[in-house]
Amino acid sequence: MDAQDALASFRDEFIIADPDLIYLDGNSLGRLPKRTIAFMRSAIEEQWGERLIRIWNDGWMQTPTRLGAKIAHLIGAGEDEVVVTDATTVNLFKLAVAALRARPQRRKIVSDVLNFPSDLYVLQGIIELLGGEHDLVLVPSRDGISIAPGDLEAAIDSQTALVSLTHVAFKSAFMYDMARVTASAHQAGAFMLWDLSHSVGAVPIDLNSSNVDLAVGCTYKYLNGGPGSPAFLYARKDLQTQLKPPIWGWLAADNPFAFDLDFTPSPDISRFKVGAPPMLSMKAVEASIDLLLQAGIECLREKSARQSEYLIYLADEWLAPLGFTLGTPRHVERRGSHVSLRHKEGYRICRALIESPPPAVKVIPDFREPDNIRLGITPLYTTYTEIHRALDRIREIAAREIYTRYPHERLDVT
Amino acid sequence: MDAQDALASFRDEFIIADPDLIYLDGNSLGRLPKRTIAFMRSAIEEQWGERLIRIWNDGWMQTPTRLGAKIAHLIGAGEDEVVVTDATTVNLFKLAVAALRARPQRRKIVSDVLNFPSDLYVLQGIIELLGGEHDLVLVPSRDGISIAPGDLEAAIDSQTALVSLTHVAFKSAFMYDMARVTASAHQAGAFMLWDLSHSVGAVPIDLNSSNVDLAVGCTYKYLNGGPGSPAFLYARKDLQTQLKPPIWGWLAADNPFAFDLDFTPSPDISRFKVGAPPMLSMKAVEASIDLLLQAGIECLREKSARQSEYLIYLADEWLAPLGFTLGTPRHVERRGSHVSLRHKEGYRICRALIESPPPAVKVIPDFREPDNIRLGITPLYTTYTEIHRALDRIREIAAREIYTRYPHERLDVT
Repeated sequence: MDAQDALASFRDEFIIADPDLIYLDGNSLGRLPKRTIAFMRSAIEEQWGERLIRIWNDGWMQTPTRLGAKIAHLIGAGEDEVVVTDATTVNLFKLAVAALRARPQRRKIVSDVLNFPSDLYVLQGIIELLGGEHDLVLVPSRDGISIAPGDLEAAIDSQTALVSLTHVAFKSAFMYDMARVTASAHQAGAFMLWDLSHSVGAVPIDLNSSNVDLAVGCTYKYLNGGPGSPAFLYARKDLQTQLKPPIWGWLAADNPFAFDLDFTPSPDISRFKVGAPPMLSMKAVEASIDLLLQAGIECLREKSARQSEYLIYLADEWLAPLGFTLGTPRHVERRGSHVSLRHKEGYRICRALIESPPPAVKVIPDFREPDNIRLGITPLYTTYTEIHRALDRIREIAAREIYTRYPHERLDVT
Repeated sequence: MDAQDALASFRDEFIIADPDLIYLDGNSLGRLPKRTIAFMRSAIEEQWGERLIRIWNDGWMQTPTRLGAKIAHLIGAGEDEVVVTDATTVNLFKLAVAALRARPQRRKIVSDVLNFPSDLYVLQGIIELLGGEHDLVLVPSRDGISIAPGDLEAAIDSQTALVSLTHVAFKSAFMYDMARVTASAHQAGAFMLWDLSHSVGAVPIDLNSSNVDLAVGCTYKYLNGGPGSPAFLYARKDLQTQLKPPIWGWLAADNPFAFDLDFTPSPDISRFKVGAPPMLSMKAVEASIDLLLQAGIECLREKSARQSEYLIYLADEWLAPLGFTLGTPRHVERRGSHVSLRHKEGYRICRALIESPPPAVKVIPDFREPDNIRLGITPLYTTYTEIHRALDRIREIAAREIYTRYPHERLDVT
């Protein structure tokens, strides 16, 4: 399968320091592209170091919208509808507040229990900020893995101001039918806001064809922008002048360098910017983004789908008899690019995968409470061989109860 | 004077690619410290590249508070009162909203016309967000350079919820008496919020001794953290549990990795964090911050004060006869570390300083509307010789009307 992989050569674009370390966490932090190294050396040593303040006139000031235009091609948006700025949660705050204020008579926000908690937290905070008069309705999951379309649609009504969902769920990889859900929101007169963090760069997205209103997303997962790299936001062209973000920063002003005492918002996507962007982190996104455009999102998805099918096939064959269950939708159209395997000793199995000393193969997944071993497939660099070796190692750890050597106590992060 | 400069050796800590380029804009973007180069190579190539997601468990997750604790030593705060996160304007938004909500009966915000416009914009946006019932009172300046203490104090009354000021004004370098103003705010029962962007790393600040409530600041000016590096915020220890920031992100939660569906804020300074921080930009701050701690803020201030005295002396001698006026307070205790010289042809003089071809010496100041040539003194690397050469070059450009070769049309930034 690796020999027939049309994207195989892209693996050479990444630093693979240890070929015996199988990295299945590119959905949490993407690998370092080789080109990023030289790009960052130049950004730091030649540009910041030598050009100094003049870098801003050398095009750095336009980086947020220039990168936004590139990401637009990955998500089916217009080049003037996307900007890279701030953290995902801050962007969600800006867009959700703007949307709620544009529907002042409506007091309901619809989301679901599978959403990334930060997205729910920000909505809870907004409700308190706006006076506590909105309700946040969380659509339940019948199977803990997915949301039934009918359940979601039943929750959206004429009181709904905003439907705020993550396109691909962070834990189960459940993927919504974006066009269908967006149509339901619009039919009820609500705004539709998608969090694309776990889908951008892994699955095709067409915001414009679904007439999506608003979206946010992350650049450090499948876009390989580096740890905590700044997020993006999308606002449909016709909404840009209608919606007023709540944080009025100088770079959102029509003419930031006029330094007027009164704020006049930019008439375009720049009104959603705030202050000076963290340029070193943003430059790393600039270095990496072209890799995805070169590979093509349709090809990436095709490979990702094949790889996840293969992974699930091995899990069914090898791991189901050892007490593992599938924590991810079985139908490929309903899942993103990672697969969760559940096991009551999931946490300790993860520790064993990561920490086993040589000659054991080292596998890096991540763990999500209560029992999910999350295996991220990044089609730019994940091989079929890696999936085979990783699943074989999980089988070994479970069958020989190697995990019993590891503690239950949680480490901070993974 | 350079020979007697106790801090002279710190200049060797910075990349000075062209010794004939006189950089007087460290108050806008600090120079690149040499140590940052190796530090960033390691952060990118060894840590992100090889450790991958495990970096977060290697201490990266604590970087925002670890850096905050270092900055605390520069601003007279406790180590558990400062965190590095987001952009300055976003932090100002968080703190100002939290303060206003903690004084719900009061409807007045006091600031001044010399404040950085982004600070005023964010306050204007907050007023609209909270229903338009607050007044933003901008204390005027009698001389366009400073604020009379009596004028400010007269504006603060029992209706005032928040006094939000920049400690050192971005244009004129006017510096408030922090203790006096904070006492006035407290006497009226208002919160005091300082923007330290143009003072941190250049002048001694003692937030605790003035009992300051809240503060924000920037790391890419005198802290040399690199373009757009993330900002910091300070909240006095006893206020941390009283104040509720409006953006509830997962990293502000008490236990982010529990992924609870309901938000429980962290009981400490971490509640003011939001999402994953832009780590490459934050690592550059980590690389540079120790330089300031080594030099010592008192020594830095002493040198800065001497250098600005020298600069003003030369301006009086050479430039006043050519139509320049001082756009900065004459008393050293009332100004920060930059000096503004005003001239009706200020913009074109700046262009001539920056763009003149060799053999003319190149000087990089920046320009601020309508007529300010802003000359930043960064005591870590600015020499007396540079100040002498720069002022001599300004004299030459003005006396020989070299600026007439340059257009009036504004470039984007400097």
